[in-house]
Amino acid sequence: MKNDFVTEYAKITEAALARYMPSGDAPQKRLYEAMNYSIFAGGKRLRPMIMMMTAKMLGKSPDTVLPFACAMEMIHTYSLIHDDLPAMDNDDLRRGKPTNHKVFGEAEAILAGDALLTKAFEVVSGYDEDGVDKSRVLRAIKVLAVSAGSEGMVGGQDIDIYGDLSELDKLKHMHSLKTGAIIRASGVIGAILSGADEKQIRAVDEYCYNLGIAFQIQDDLLDVLGNEEALGKPIGSDADNNKSTYVTLCGTEKSQKLQEEYIKKAKASLNIFDNNEELLALADMLVNRRV
Amino acid sequence: MKNDFVTEYAKITEAALARYMPSGDAPQKRLYEAMNYSIFAGGKRLRPMIMMMTAKMLGKSPDTVLPFACAMEMIHTYSLIHDDLPAMDNDDLRRGKPTNHKVFGEAEAILAGDALLTKAFEVVSGYDEDGVDKSRVLRAIKVLAVSAGSEGMVGGQDIDIYGDLSELDKLKHMHSLKTGAIIRASGVIGAILSGADEKQIRAVDEYCYNLGIAFQIQDDLLDVLGNEEALGKPIGSDADNNKSTYVTLCGTEKSQKLQEEYIKKAKASLNIFDNNEELLALADMLVNRRV
Repeated sequence: MKNDFVTEYAKITEAALARYMPSGDAPQKRLYEAMNYSIFAGGKRLRPMIMMMTAKMLGKSPDTVLPFACAMEMIHTYSLIHDDLPAMDNDDLRRGKPTNHKVFGEAEAILAGDALLTKAFEVVSGYDEDGVDKSRVLRAIKVLAVSAGSEGMVGGQDIDIYGDLSELDKLKHMHSLKTGAIIRASGVIGAILSGADEKQIRAVDEYCYNLGIAFQIQDDLLDVLGNEEALGKPIGSDADNNKSTYVTLCGTEKSQKLQEEYIKKAKASLNIFDNNEELLALADMLVNRRV
Repeated sequence: MKNDFVTEYAKITEAALARYMPSGDAPQKRLYEAMNYSIFAGGKRLRPMIMMMTAKMLGKSPDTVLPFACAMEMIHTYSLIHDDLPAMDNDDLRRGKPTNHKVFGEAEAILAGDALLTKAFEVVSGYDEDGVDKSRVLRAIKVLAVSAGSEGMVGGQDIDIYGDLSELDKLKHMHSLKTGAIIRASGVIGAILSGADEKQIRAVDEYCYNLGIAFQIQDDLLDVLGNEEALGKPIGSDADNNKSTYVTLCGTEKSQKLQEEYIKKAKASLNIFDNNEELLALADMLVNRRV
């Protein structure tokens, strides 16, 4: 993803994150280091990007959604830290760098995750953009919390570990919670804060729902078709680990076809909007990504 | 703590928690079980109690603070689940029952904690009590998040694990974050939602600050003076583990004297209020508790 506007949104996110993240010589400075290590570990900032692009499509500036965009990135980052823990996926590398617990130890990694999740809600509760009704802010916080919790991301991670993923529908449901929920929430929050009406909110939600599935299929495809060096992790590990994925359940070719369909549906949902160019381009970029 | 009004507040909290907690036959039902196991493991509901007593002192009903009271209890419970993990304190028992990870495994315990923390913010973002301004709701959410995060409870846990606790001031600062921050926030949130002015909010904050220290000293005292069976854990373990406590740093007698002073200060902060009987009684009860 190398388009200029993508880089620009990532920069805006990084700068805002730097303002929100704790630092300095406190007695808990080790915790601060662990939090900052993972939040600045080179993420794509996809979720903030979706939120800001949605705002722009609705005629608003990035500032309208920036606290929520950073909060979403904090939540995404905490989930990666906890998922990598020895008790969970036990991963040593993330984006080619040692995982949080490999650098700071398990206890600190658990705390850094907890603190990032909590910081997310601190940041959004301080939201004070002129012209945005407080009821909309509270609604956006609720969407954020539901998407990240036991009926969203954490629920999905639970199903991924303990659930039945033997059929495509079950796999799809798991992903719709584990990764899909906060991607959908990113668009929906962007729409809510930008003053969208219910029909517009539903259209953005549908775009993100389909984008999320296509994004997940791309993840599964990259595991067999990807470049080890670019990905920062070994390829072919899903099959080796008997992992249930789109590719292991229905093959490479059908997965690619499914992905095309979801991208098509995602783009069609944006028909009701003018100025939908960035989100349309993002959908194409995600399918063509190599990392 | 056996007074009737204490039991009554605990009952109100339990009933409300039962309404907010997820349950049922979802694919992630194992996560729901783990969350419910710890939230209904027989806590004293001290923090909800402080919040509801503050509301009552200011002429409001428990309903005014109930979503926040439940959220605070969820946050307190998640912190216990994560603190008990093998990577942290590695405790097998909590209130005489097997800890969450002993029953459900480490991965599920991490997720149950994450989900409870997230559920807390879901519940408060749905707050919709008539007559409470949305700005006050957002302010209360912010107090909740700050008290639980890297500048509050999680920060304190980090200092407890990695920090220097060799002097009383440092120990006190650690406790002021690890356990004190959410106790203070309980009173402050109760005051904010009840329409208190800044002077009243400060007075409640001061009460809770001093109460929190006295409460911690009682914890440390019970470790040497307590009854093993009533506590549900072995006594004398702090000294055995070379743990820094009020008792190990300044002895039993001085700890008791300090505790009396903090209780006195706590009660004095309530002078500006009529109807302060319950919070005054609570301060005395906490010092006399045996579990």
